Amino acid sequence: MTAPQDPQQPAPTLVELTGRLAGFAAARRWQPFHTPKNLAAALSVEAGELLEIFQWLTPEQAAVVMDDPKSAHRVRDEVADVLAYLLQFCTAVGVDPLAALDAKIDRNELRFPAAPDE
Amino acid sequence: MTAPQDPQQPAPTLVELTGRLAGFAAARRWQPFHTPKNLAAALSVEAGELLEIFQWLTPEQAAVVMDDPKSAHRVRDEVADVLAYLLQFCTAVGVDPLAALDAKIDRNELRFPAAPDE
Amino acid sequence: MTAPQDPQQPAPTLVELTGRLAGFAAARRWQPFHTPKNLAAALSVEAGELLEIFQWLTPEQAAVVMDDPKSAHRVRDEVADVLAYLLQFCTAVGVDPLAALDAKIDRNELRFPAAPDE
Amino acid sequence: MTAPQDPQQPAPTLVELTGRLAGFAAARRWQPFHTPKNLAAALSVEAGELLEIFQWLTPEQAAVVMDDPKSAHRVRDEVADVLAYLLQFCTAVGVDPLAALDAKIDRNELRFPAAPDE
Repeated sequence: MTAPQDPQQPAPTLVELTGRLAGFAAARRWQPFHTPKNLAAALSVEAGELLEIFQWLTPEQAAVVMDDPKSAHRVRDEVADVLAYLLQFCTAVGVDPLAALDAKIDRNELRFPAAPDE
Repeated sequence: MTAPQDPQQPAPTLVELTGRLAGFAAARRWQPFHTPKNLAAALSVEAGELLEIFQWLTPEQAAVVMDDPKSAHRVRDEVADVLAYLLQFCTAVGVDPLAALDAKIDRNELRFPAAPDE
Repeated sequence: MTAPQDPQQPAPTLVELTGRLAGFAAARRWQPFHTPKNLAAALSVEAGELLEIFQWLTPEQAAVVMDDPKSAHRVRDEVADVLAYLLQFCTAVGVDPLAALDAKIDRNELRFPAAPDE
Repeated sequence: MTAPQDPQQPAPTLVELTGRLAGFAAARRWQPFHTPKNLAAALSVEAGELLEIFQWLTPEQAAVVMDDPKSAHRVRDEVADVLAYLLQFCTAVGVDPLAALDAKIDRNELRFPAAPDE
């Protein structure tokens, strides 16, 4: 259902996609709607739509959700929506999501010591 | 509050951070908790925490949320959490988030025609 | 769009609706799905659907959302879904939502002193 | 941890709690913040906090969450927050939540036929 990925053409980088999203919104004059508050709300709404796929599934059913092409498409679609709003939110507030996550993992490594080897 | 970004050392890529998160979870033996359903729930919870920062703000207040260092740190922290769970979810279900978003923008370009030039 | 409310017949109480929901689920053999975790996820998903109605609206537009019959129906529909899952969650964990809220307001009255008269 | 429920004094009704919440907000001059959009966001945030309690639990662990007094208090606290924002949202938009749910169950009875007796 998704466009076939050309094996010669790798997926774009996060920075490239961020630029593509900005161009997409500009071409539709959607920027006035893309305030930090609206984008944070939209991100939360889309995360809910991803969760909706799993809400009634047992752990066993959830583990094989990608075996059904229709469910798999829906999962990829909601992942894309969550990432799109996250990137647009980051653009609106001027945050580099990669640097933010890198710094957070640094902090978590201090906060949660690794389990000792057995 | 965040670790200063070394200007010589650029932020890692999304793929590198995905690997770092997997190593982090493995070192703490957290993988049994990282089912698709749990990670989708955690992603939704963290998106809610990001929204919480904005819930009582006027559009004007929300626009300057990064001017306050404490709020700015909180925003970067929640962005990191959302991205972390999104990447871990993608690992659990075998989805490439960059390819998923690229394909989604392709579909949206057909679905939402650009506004005509004035 | 909603069934007209018979002025002779007042809306049922929260306890009556809780019983009606339990009968509805039992008649469809949905109880196995109604675990606390699933119902908490469903509640969060429905709260997201309510928020979706407002996500791109300015405060001014949001203030008149009930003036449009279609939006008004959608709002009532999502309010119903949120309340339904909240009541079913409370049944699953044995919590009285009215007593829980009453006790919480008691605590909040101590936590947040009222503003002085001017 | 919650105030002991006086067995002589039953929990208030939903209508009484709605009035108590309105008085509480008025005494603190919080009404300007209680727009439909803000309250829908706050409701979603609180539903996320309720879900957070369950996000890493197995179905078995989730089923006994009320056996631990600290978890039980947290569940009641988040239930109260969700209900509080739902009622305040309903006040802001002029929706009767009991009538809305009653009408929705009517519609769902037509939409989802009951399972036949075996």
